[in-house]
Amino acid sequence: MKKKIAVILAGCGKADGSEIHEATLTLLAIDQQRAEYHAFAPNIDQRDVINHITGDEMPEKRNVLIEASRITRGEIKDLKEYDVKDFDALVLPGGFGAAKNLCSFAVDGENMNINEEVTKALQQTYEAKKPIGALCIAPVMVAKALKATVTLGQDDDIAKTVENWGGKHKKTTHGEIVTDEEKKIVTTPCYMLDAKISDIYEGATNLIKKVLELA
Amino acid sequence: MKKKIAVILAGCGKADGSEIHEATLTLLAIDQQRAEYHAFAPNIDQRDVINHITGDEMPEKRNVLIEASRITRGEIKDLKEYDVKDFDALVLPGGFGAAKNLCSFAVDGENMNINEEVTKALQQTYEAKKPIGALCIAPVMVAKALKATVTLGQDDDIAKTVENWGGKHKKTTHGEIVTDEEKKIVTTPCYMLDAKISDIYEGATNLIKKVLELA
Repeated sequence: MKKKIAVILAGCGKADGSEIHEATLTLLAIDQQRAEYHAFAPNIDQRDVINHITGDEMPEKRNVLIEASRITRGEIKDLKEYDVKDFDALVLPGGFGAAKNLCSFAVDGENMNINEEVTKALQQTYEAKKPIGALCIAPVMVAKALKATVTLGQDDDIAKTVENWGGKHKKTTHGEIVTDEEKKIVTTPCYMLDAKISDIYEGATNLIKKVLELA
Repeated sequence: MKKKIAVILAGCGKADGSEIHEATLTLLAIDQQRAEYHAFAPNIDQRDVINHITGDEMPEKRNVLIEASRITRGEIKDLKEYDVKDFDALVLPGGFGAAKNLCSFAVDGENMNINEEVTKALQQTYEAKKPIGALCIAPVMVAKALKATVTLGQDDDIAKTVENWGGKHKKTTHGEIVTDEEKKIVTTPCYMLDAKISDIYEGATNLIKKVLELA
């Protein structure tokens, strides 16, 4: 039986949704490691819609679940349907959407809130002693919710924020992962660094291998 | 000096734009083969906007260039700026957007038109004896414009259409490529077959390797 990994997406595009390379290469790594991916996203409006060329906000409304389904070719479920019993692990790719739509880190920093369904998924998975992986900026959620040891790359300010939440931060470079063995949490920096797409592939692959080892 | 590959995108999402896995894994393959990618897209409205969960049309307008920039993290140019002198090869990923926004195959079939800037890019590249790669449904454009030998997977009707245009069709399965050595055109079926994401990686990698060999 193939192991099943739930993947929580946050839209489609680095500036207002899931970072597309990180999300796609997470799915690729899962398939290459002979596991199955099952995507979820909250059925809510995006915080904003960004023109990725100019960086300007566009006068539009888009739905996180509908936009995220572009990355998974339509195969996705409302996050409220996530049940830890059905899965061996949970993974959260990054992108600014993770910090805008899944939590409010992008606007509230240290005082951020985490979406209720995301919090529930993290808590359920942690309590079931199943592993959680998080890429790029997504580790802020496991750092705050579970006081885990994580990596978010090289930035000292964000490391301090993690410590203020009661977590621990370890600096990493391209492709590296940090594992909180006790809490079964695996993180990798991806585009928190000035990375190339092949670095993202390496980081996602290392993360998924470790998550499956812990599952 | 790294070889430079121009990549023409058609939006962001399999049903109305570029297929995200094919586009992303083309970029990954280029980077892994130590070449550079440079993305282009026409600055035009999408033919439609599709909800990828339901398959229904959404009452919205989106721009091909702006949506495509989500796949390349903002780094993209208007296709009208493409100049073959600056590149060693040209590659077109698939997705229904290639057949809706870059040409009209999705609605007109055999009688389709190809976008003027796409036609110009294909002709310029061919005349400069530089290789062209096309994935999934995108080979219809090289088959029609250049009467090339291509693959579009296994479908007999589409093979017949290619022959009616004066091209040739070869059947392929997952990860395989077809090379028209004389015209320097490389094609691979990707999601024209019932493929997994790791099949797309294999096809994109084989295609990019061959394109770089011919460049």
